[in-house]
Amino acid sequence: MLTRGGCPKNMLSIRDALEALEGKWKLLILFSLSSGPKRFKELSKEVNGITDKILSKELKNLEINKLIKREVYDTFPPAVIYSITPHGMSLEKVMDELHLWGLSHRKKIMGK
Amino acid sequence: MLTRGGCPKNMLSIRDALEALEGKWKLLILFSLSSGPKRFKELSKEVNGITDKILSKELKNLEINKLIKREVYDTFPPAVIYSITPHGMSLEKVMDELHLWGLSHRKKIMGK
Repeated sequence: MLTRGGCPKNMLSIRDALEALEGKWKLLILFSLSSGPKRFKELSKEVNGITDKILSKELKNLEINKLIKREVYDTFPPAVIYSITPHGMSLEKVMDELHLWGLSHRKKIMGK
Repeated sequence: MLTRGGCPKNMLSIRDALEALEGKWKLLILFSLSSGPKRFKELSKEVNGITDKILSKELKNLEINKLIKREVYDTFPPAVIYSITPHGMSLEKVMDELHLWGLSHRKKIMGK
């Protein structure tokens, strides 16, 4: 374990990561965008349980952190498309490990 | 990438993981306990910025999720010691990946 031993320097980088990914929605939005660019309404549907207000706030925050890109296409009506950036895709290992751990946690706690 | 493709079943397990680890404190507390069992006051000092009220709440939640163990020793005064469980230690890969990603995110965003 890289982080074994509780070195304060490692805690700082974990803290940075947790601050950028805070809350239960950001990784789910990124996960949804990892399968391809999407419109707001598609994301709203795929990320079950999120309100439009929160989704809008989270998308802005993800854009500031360079994890997603927002593009406006000059169509009628104009289309706004969100896509994951290479920096966002660099979270794939984090998402993989969370996915695997989530599976084992479900078995452990929920007995499913 | 295991989770590539945004499969809804994978999203469920990521959601489970994020719910168990929600907020910016739980992983930091687990990280601190990964170096050894600690008393409340030691944790409070090591997890910089957390209030005693929040720490107490988070510890209860981590115990419910079987990620930590709380033991009371019959000394004068009684000592309460928190330690990480094997299930909590199974988050080591998640913490490792968050640590590595946090480092690269700091470089990307903060230019440090």
